[in-house]
Amino acid sequence: MKFLGKNVQISDSAKIGANVRIGDNTVIYENVEIGDDSIIANNCVIGEPTANYYSTESHKNKPTIIGKNALIRSHAIIYEDVQIGEGFQTGHRLTIREKTIIGNHCGIGTNCDVQGYLTIGDHCHFHSEVHICQFSTIGNFVFMYPGVVLANDKYPPTEQVIGPTIGDYTQIGIQSSVIGDVKIGANCFIGAQTVITKNFEAFAYILGVPAKRKGDVRDLKSESGEPLYPWKNRFSRGMPW
Amino acid sequence: MKFLGKNVQISDSAKIGANVRIGDNTVIYENVEIGDDSIIANNCVIGEPTANYYSTESHKNKPTIIGKNALIRSHAIIYEDVQIGEGFQTGHRLTIREKTIIGNHCGIGTNCDVQGYLTIGDHCHFHSEVHICQFSTIGNFVFMYPGVVLANDKYPPTEQVIGPTIGDYTQIGIQSSVIGDVKIGANCFIGAQTVITKNFEAFAYILGVPAKRKGDVRDLKSESGEPLYPWKNRFSRGMPW
Amino acid sequence: MKFLGKNVQISDSAKIGANVRIGDNTVIYENVEIGDDSIIANNCVIGEPTANYYSTESHKNKPTIIGKNALIRSHAIIYEDVQIGEGFQTGHRLTIREKTIIGNHCGIGTNCDVQGYLTIGDHCHFHSEVHICQFSTIGNFVFMYPGVVLANDKYPPTEQVIGPTIGDYTQIGIQSSVIGDVKIGANCFIGAQTVITKNFEAFAYILGVPAKRKGDVRDLKSESGEPLYPWKNRFSRGMPW
Repeated sequence: MKFLGKNVQISDSAKIGANVRIGDNTVIYENVEIGDDSIIANNCVIGEPTANYYSTESHKNKPTIIGKNALIRSHAIIYEDVQIGEGFQTGHRLTIREKTIIGNHCGIGTNCDVQGYLTIGDHCHFHSEVHICQFSTIGNFVFMYPGVVLANDKYPPTEQVIGPTIGDYTQIGIQSSVIGDVKIGANCFIGAQTVITKNFEAFAYILGVPAKRKGDVRDLKSESGEPLYPWKNRFSRGMPW
Repeated sequence: MKFLGKNVQISDSAKIGANVRIGDNTVIYENVEIGDDSIIANNCVIGEPTANYYSTESHKNKPTIIGKNALIRSHAIIYEDVQIGEGFQTGHRLTIREKTIIGNHCGIGTNCDVQGYLTIGDHCHFHSEVHICQFSTIGNFVFMYPGVVLANDKYPPTEQVIGPTIGDYTQIGIQSSVIGDVKIGANCFIGAQTVITKNFEAFAYILGVPAKRKGDVRDLKSESGEPLYPWKNRFSRGMPW
Repeated sequence: MKFLGKNVQISDSAKIGANVRIGDNTVIYENVEIGDDSIIANNCVIGEPTANYYSTESHKNKPTIIGKNALIRSHAIIYEDVQIGEGFQTGHRLTIREKTIIGNHCGIGTNCDVQGYLTIGDHCHFHSEVHICQFSTIGNFVFMYPGVVLANDKYPPTEQVIGPTIGDYTQIGIQSSVIGDVKIGANCFIGAQTVITKNFEAFAYILGVPAKRKGDVRDLKSESGEPLYPWKNRFSRGMPW
């Protein structure tokens, strides 16, 4: 009994692909494009206008493009001026602000808060309650776990800020912070509740408050002695290899 | 003016008990059973189908059972295949995924995220923004405070994971992490922002990153010299004693 | 196509100011007063009744007053018995419980959870996912960043609790905790993931688990050697100076 079409609003200027299903109480605003075979579940808002809408009568929504095969779960809010690749999957109550670019085959979990003015590569997966600040640059195959916060200001408040850059394949453990214009290399593993305010090279195992390089991730072994990283060699669910 | 019945959807196969009130814009899906005298507030989704629903036309919702005297506040999402005992109370925007079993007289606060495939005992109380990972086992009278994260993977990502086991009466302070297949004994107190990746015996006072046993909780005294733990002796609000 | 008036409920006893716009699926309960030129976006609940409503047929909503020029974004829940000054701005999915008093020109971000029985001064700005416990007292020009938790109980659970008092201009960095009946002076800067359980004087630079005074904020300099604090001298966006 989902997708009954009850209390749904879709703008005349929205382009809805073939075989798209849209849940009850969902709103699709002007200039939204949704790719074929996508599902937008109940109570979502797609193409939410920015604050300018409230003050400027002539406000025109910029394009919001969601690629094919998306599954956007209920209560998500995705602003205007967002581009998302194909195969996008979300949890519930996701927020994505304007000027966000997301690659293909990404997943973003329940209650995540993506602040806009940022780029996320392909095959990234953010678990629940992840907060990505403005002006961040996230590579490909980057995974973040519950409660991670990326922030763009080491000594707040500041008028001009730049967010973190996270390298490909890097894993960020639960409730960790990455703060300011810092660069984390590829294939790093950042342990839980780590606070990063400086750069780290590729393959670093990073831990602590403040964060320190504890070693090379390639030296981390499982209980049975197998190398844990690069994780590409031991994890394939949903991955292209 | 609540419970006007506006824009409510209730499946024909749902079993709604006597004197149940259901808020506006709420959806009750197939195979949901709600006990007598319960309140489901506005904008809730009860019996949300799992992802299989989107790909399998023949998907049948598994039973979702909510015991009598529940008070489920607005914007909650409770999946199919969930069993909850009587006297359940929630904050707003709770998420409970499939295969969650919750005992009697539990309370789960605003924005909590219960990931499913897990068991919670009786009289547990989770304050706001608590994240419980899959494959966790929570005892009775366990309280968790805002921002606590239970996670099931010490070196992510991993295909096979087991979550924490938390003993009866244990208290987990704000923003703490409990990670992996660890066992925390009964009557422990875990201080704020602690990171636990190993086992602890009962009555441990646990603190730090990484977590250490700081002493026996029975030695903790109030300013007036009274013992603080076991807390059962000094706290009774909502408890059966 | 916002503000179509679809599925909106407004109590007859609500006082809606001039030029107020109210989004679709929004509910305004009894005894709510909304100031002129305000915007209440979609799917909001204003004047949510407290638990007493569910058990007491004669429940009367206490006044909820929102000052003029408010912009309350979608999915916010604001309880009865709340007073908010003029120029209030919010993110999405804000929760404000009963007996909250908020001054003028405050902003509270997405997913913030304001627990009620507390006071917030003028010109405060809380970024996303901030949790403010009951019985807190927040001064003026206090900024808090994502994931901050104020908690009122050092050794939980406790029947009687008092929350923190935060002085004017103080900045609280991401994911920090302030716990119990502690007093933080004016013009402090609290770094990321700090855990505070004791008092600090004005102008303290506070860091660590447990929190320590690392110095005087007036000695913190930017890379170009300019003093960073008091921040009033270098930041003016949205401020009255």
